[in-house]
Amino acid sequence: MTLEETLEKIHPADKTAMEAALAHWNNIAMPLHSLGRLQDTVVRIAGMTGNARVDLKKKALVVMCADNGVVEEGVTQSGQEVTKIVAENFLKEKATASILCKKAGADIFPVDIGIATDSTILQHKVMYGTKNMAKEPAMTREQAVQALEVGIHMVEELKEKGYGIIATGEMGIGNTTTSSAVTAVLLEQDPAKVTGRGAGLSGTGLKKKISVIRDAIALHKPKKEDPIDVLAKVGGLDIAGMAGVFLGGAACRIPVVADGFISCVAALCAIRICPAVKDYVITSHKSKEPATMMILEALDIPVFLDCDMCLGEGTGAVTIYPILDMALAVYGGMCTFSDNQMENYVPLV
Amino acid sequence: MTLEETLEKIHPADKTAMEAALAHWNNIAMPLHSLGRLQDTVVRIAGMTGNARVDLKKKALVVMCADNGVVEEGVTQSGQEVTKIVAENFLKEKATASILCKKAGADIFPVDIGIATDSTILQHKVMYGTKNMAKEPAMTREQAVQALEVGIHMVEELKEKGYGIIATGEMGIGNTTTSSAVTAVLLEQDPAKVTGRGAGLSGTGLKKKISVIRDAIALHKPKKEDPIDVLAKVGGLDIAGMAGVFLGGAACRIPVVADGFISCVAALCAIRICPAVKDYVITSHKSKEPATMMILEALDIPVFLDCDMCLGEGTGAVTIYPILDMALAVYGGMCTFSDNQMENYVPLV
Repeated sequence: MTLEETLEKIHPADKTAMEAALAHWNNIAMPLHSLGRLQDTVVRIAGMTGNARVDLKKKALVVMCADNGVVEEGVTQSGQEVTKIVAENFLKEKATASILCKKAGADIFPVDIGIATDSTILQHKVMYGTKNMAKEPAMTREQAVQALEVGIHMVEELKEKGYGIIATGEMGIGNTTTSSAVTAVLLEQDPAKVTGRGAGLSGTGLKKKISVIRDAIALHKPKKEDPIDVLAKVGGLDIAGMAGVFLGGAACRIPVVADGFISCVAALCAIRICPAVKDYVITSHKSKEPATMMILEALDIPVFLDCDMCLGEGTGAVTIYPILDMALAVYGGMCTFSDNQMENYVPLV
Repeated sequence: MTLEETLEKIHPADKTAMEAALAHWNNIAMPLHSLGRLQDTVVRIAGMTGNARVDLKKKALVVMCADNGVVEEGVTQSGQEVTKIVAENFLKEKATASILCKKAGADIFPVDIGIATDSTILQHKVMYGTKNMAKEPAMTREQAVQALEVGIHMVEELKEKGYGIIATGEMGIGNTTTSSAVTAVLLEQDPAKVTGRGAGLSGTGLKKKISVIRDAIALHKPKKEDPIDVLAKVGGLDIAGMAGVFLGGAACRIPVVADGFISCVAALCAIRICPAVKDYVITSHKSKEPATMMILEALDIPVFLDCDMCLGEGTGAVTIYPILDMALAVYGGMCTFSDNQMENYVPLV
């Protein structure tokens, strides 16, 4: 599907399915709404899939891996070569996200959407890393659209393979810089307020990072009301790719789980491109990166976890999979006040 | 073990084991402290068990089930008979906590520590429900100590059976009333500030509940500095039993997980009886019951989940088991910066 075709297919969640799911919860023999957000999320998933019989089927994590030209400016602690090393470690069960996926019963799909060198993972490379936004736009509008379509394509393929839920993650040295830049524009915030230390930057490094972001925004003047323009000028291929996964999830009626700061920025971009996408986004955790709370407030979808995680790679998103499994075990297995079993109860919609 | 023997066996966590666990995390190939509280908790567990090779072994949930005489005053929405019904449902996989336990790979141990009628679950009945604290003390000091020792005994038995972590839960109509009363005394708060609607009380019911608590405290004058006196006069057998589990966990060096409001009140009682118990308590979630935040602040042990759960039975505590499993998968399975495997790395302490 092209971006245009995808946008045409996105509709708000199915209210009838949500009402049926809510009615089932209310009939389960326990105090009303006593599982809180676990229940709410099952109801939302019913709305996403259009079916009150909620079954997550196979669970996936898509990790968009890409490099960012802006690392030339010295805004990161690690060198660009780390992106490829970690990206290739995902399939060797040597990255944190792959270990968490295995434990959560999920499959991991690292995607090379723009690593600066050749890599051995799934190839959807839009370019060999973005340009340095301190000097020129990170990418062209066409390349940004292409990256969005990589994300959409991944969802179509995973749906075909029987996946029922997709978590989003990223790997890309320099991507808290691009995420802060996109946040500053979309939320109209001063870069100093939305920029953090990433993976451990010093005080001087942080000042440099803020000034690079401020200058890049001043240079390219990305248009707040046009998220694709923002992604192209000061964003990254990983953010655009994940935004595509959120768009694709909404079009294919599959729930997509946001991870921390970078992934939440991607969710915000997708929702700004098409507001109905919001109905298909599940958030997972409050990350330690300072702008995350602002982004989460803008998304207005409450999280599950408050654990100070800030690793990226989709690690926080994957950590809610077992919680969703537990919620569904109650939803599907718990006796109702009328003592009916699930099969008899939940209406097929 | 008697209460006295238990208290003699409680010592602070093992700092050497904690330092070894922290050193291992810092050597793992990921940004420093990027798994946040998941890492902190593994380090704390190393301190509890005195071993940096953290292995939770078998996981348990102990559900203390008891009735409260104060329900005579009309402070609850459900009748007393519900306690026994739900308590007996735990072993039939018909209660929410049992379904969650099964999914989390944990075993559930409902204990009759004071149900008002005979029941078919594990018998450690101290009395057939407490007295009505609106008229007389809920129980004698001896009965409160006996209930604490039931909790201690459960930990000894579970440790013997190979369990490495114990979650706490409760079932007992009227136990948010007793928990609010104990909280009001221990935290020196006005009952109106620490009393909520429990499982769905009306506005009038809430007012009644508050005035019953206020009057009972005025009548019995429980001594804030003597938590056993507070438990005996305005507490419940379930709270005392869970407080015993926290004490026993500390004495037997087994981590004990607190659930929501009632279980956190029990943790606070145990810590007030013996401050070193704090090192052995893991909290799980922010419950919707209004006083929980105050109790959590008093405990000063950060939670994992923020999901508006308020079901009790240990449901929130059990929901963090898969999260701990995921943290341990990374701790034990992730390659280190020096690319050593776990076996070679973590010192035996």
